[in-house]
Amino acid sequence: MSLPSQRPILAVSRRTRATPFTPRVEASGVQGYTVYNHMLLPTAFRSMEEDYRHLKSHVQVWDVGCERQVEVKGPDAAKLVQMMTPRNLSKAQVGQCLYAPLVDEAGMLINDPVILKLAEDRFWLSIADSDVLLWAKGLALGYGLDVRVSEPDVWPLAIQGPKAEDVAARIFGEDVRSIGFFRFRTLSFQGHPLIVARSGWSKQGGFEIYLDRAELGLTLWDACMAAGADLEIGPGCPNLIERIEGGLLSYGNDMTIANNPLECGLDKYCQIDAAPTCIGAEALRRIAADGVARKIMGLRIADGVLPSCVEPWPVLVAGKRVGAVSSAVYSPDFGANLAFAMLDRGHWAPGGAVEVETPAGLRRAVISTLPFTK
Amino acid sequence: MSLPSQRPILAVSRRTRATPFTPRVEASGVQGYTVYNHMLLPTAFRSMEEDYRHLKSHVQVWDVGCERQVEVKGPDAAKLVQMMTPRNLSKAQVGQCLYAPLVDEAGMLINDPVILKLAEDRFWLSIADSDVLLWAKGLALGYGLDVRVSEPDVWPLAIQGPKAEDVAARIFGEDVRSIGFFRFRTLSFQGHPLIVARSGWSKQGGFEIYLDRAELGLTLWDACMAAGADLEIGPGCPNLIERIEGGLLSYGNDMTIANNPLECGLDKYCQIDAAPTCIGAEALRRIAADGVARKIMGLRIADGVLPSCVEPWPVLVAGKRVGAVSSAVYSPDFGANLAFAMLDRGHWAPGGAVEVETPAGLRRAVISTLPFTK
Repeated sequence: MSLPSQRPILAVSRRTRATPFTPRVEASGVQGYTVYNHMLLPTAFRSMEEDYRHLKSHVQVWDVGCERQVEVKGPDAAKLVQMMTPRNLSKAQVGQCLYAPLVDEAGMLINDPVILKLAEDRFWLSIADSDVLLWAKGLALGYGLDVRVSEPDVWPLAIQGPKAEDVAARIFGEDVRSIGFFRFRTLSFQGHPLIVARSGWSKQGGFEIYLDRAELGLTLWDACMAAGADLEIGPGCPNLIERIEGGLLSYGNDMTIANNPLECGLDKYCQIDAAPTCIGAEALRRIAADGVARKIMGLRIADGVLPSCVEPWPVLVAGKRVGAVSSAVYSPDFGANLAFAMLDRGHWAPGGAVEVETPAGLRRAVISTLPFTK
Repeated sequence: MSLPSQRPILAVSRRTRATPFTPRVEASGVQGYTVYNHMLLPTAFRSMEEDYRHLKSHVQVWDVGCERQVEVKGPDAAKLVQMMTPRNLSKAQVGQCLYAPLVDEAGMLINDPVILKLAEDRFWLSIADSDVLLWAKGLALGYGLDVRVSEPDVWPLAIQGPKAEDVAARIFGEDVRSIGFFRFRTLSFQGHPLIVARSGWSKQGGFEIYLDRAELGLTLWDACMAAGADLEIGPGCPNLIERIEGGLLSYGNDMTIANNPLECGLDKYCQIDAAPTCIGAEALRRIAADGVARKIMGLRIADGVLPSCVEPWPVLVAGKRVGAVSSAVYSPDFGANLAFAMLDRGHWAPGGAVEVETPAGLRRAVISTLPFTK
């Protein structure tokens, strides 16, 4: 299977939904989109490199309206959410955000949302790109749980970058500074309560604002831009270079339903003994006992700049396939091509030498732990 | 919420998967894609109008690899599939394709696949754009059904258009001519058995070939092109004009999980009394008894060519909103703008006059039955 070689046009329809921020995204000169949870997600404003520099130096506003919320509410809400993830939620507090792999009965990954505990009986799963709504609804119905599963109209807007806190403080007041990492609070914006979390899909710090009123979208975007005018704020989006540097895996790219969380380095979110009601607990226990057969590692790939990785690139040792690269990019700050690769047991030791079959030819590479360090 | 005004670039990654046919699609000069079931679906080769003329006159090869198959297999397979749809499957035969709305417990639409009955205990759901895999897996697990739900690697290739049968006969032999509408047979292609169905997402007739071997993709595409060389065969894709003329609804565009099949004109696929085990049967029975509150109808919208409909356009009567347009296009053959609109009870009588708030201004429109007739 090969890749579109040109830069193809995206044909937009109602099925690939816009967000309340799309008009501003357009006006800001977005260069491209992807489709994520049946919605538009911007992928670049200036170039990927310029966006990257800007994100790491200043502050950006991101339309991540495609991070859909699956709401689980009712007497059995906590029970259902715990069934879906091996992360122990028993001590989760209202106001907490929890990154949590979701697994099926075989321990395979369904999604990797951030779970917001809104109340003892109400959760939002802020999802990656798969229809968790259908999974949660199917389980709820089949197991006869007393719970309501829905996808409320909520469109997150992210403020990311080293200056994000200053921007957020100017919009929501100094209170935001005291929001802990992966905590949220309900704050007022123009008299309307909004959930504001210290989270986001970058390692530069920042906030996600869970907008639940479409008609406030442009106002909120404009308020962010105005608040950051003297801080070089600009439009942005999840950035491939920054996320690979930081070791952020992307569901659908680096891990799929063909993977379990243990081989994806998500061990610390799999507290199987403390979460025995997770439907994948038994399977994960077996996998853990046997030891994983492969593992996601970092790779530094030698030589010149690579094309983008839109299909797995074979990783070879002495001509034998021992894994595959799922994402790769040239990092200016590392001065190297960085990649994620799923590597077979016996071939994942950091420092090990491998070869990668890239579209630009065979390249030498060295295995690294994640996240990458200089 | 507004729409991308330009023709944005689609950023492709592994998450928006290519198909075994993508290299040929690219080489054929595809103009754009959409993302459908996390995969690339071409949307135009020449212009939409040229593709339309060609489809209605000749024959096209379509990369519809994005029509993913959800396989349901095992002792409880028939039971699970019947739970998912109000269409009565009790008399379905092996070798039959059945268009079937899938509904949840409230009777709301989850998807509208074509179901292929491969064996008494094995089905493929050839799905529209939502993760039916997760829905089916969730139900199977929750209800404790003895069934295996998976998404096999199968990529349909369609041959559509008035000359499709001749092309198919040259590839698979004269036998294909005897395949009935919405029937399939397993035929040999280069010694490999392939499911070939008389079906497809156009009203021009044709076949869908269910390729289950990626490495045969280019060979199959090339064989189609060679077989149709003297029949003006060309690359194509589902065509907006042709589908609206023909009354083909698109899940995600014209109907969503916010709709029930009865209001979408899918009554004849809701045999509730004969399918009492459908999990939405009770809800649909209530909806049917009350009468639907709204209904999808056709509209002919007056005056000049309209922009594409990427968000619902309000439909008004005497200034009051009575519905919304979900898809619209100018049809050269009808010499009119044709549209689908969900209209409130009391406002759906064919021949009735309404107004539509389009991005190009307020337009008069007349209600029509579906499919449109000249």
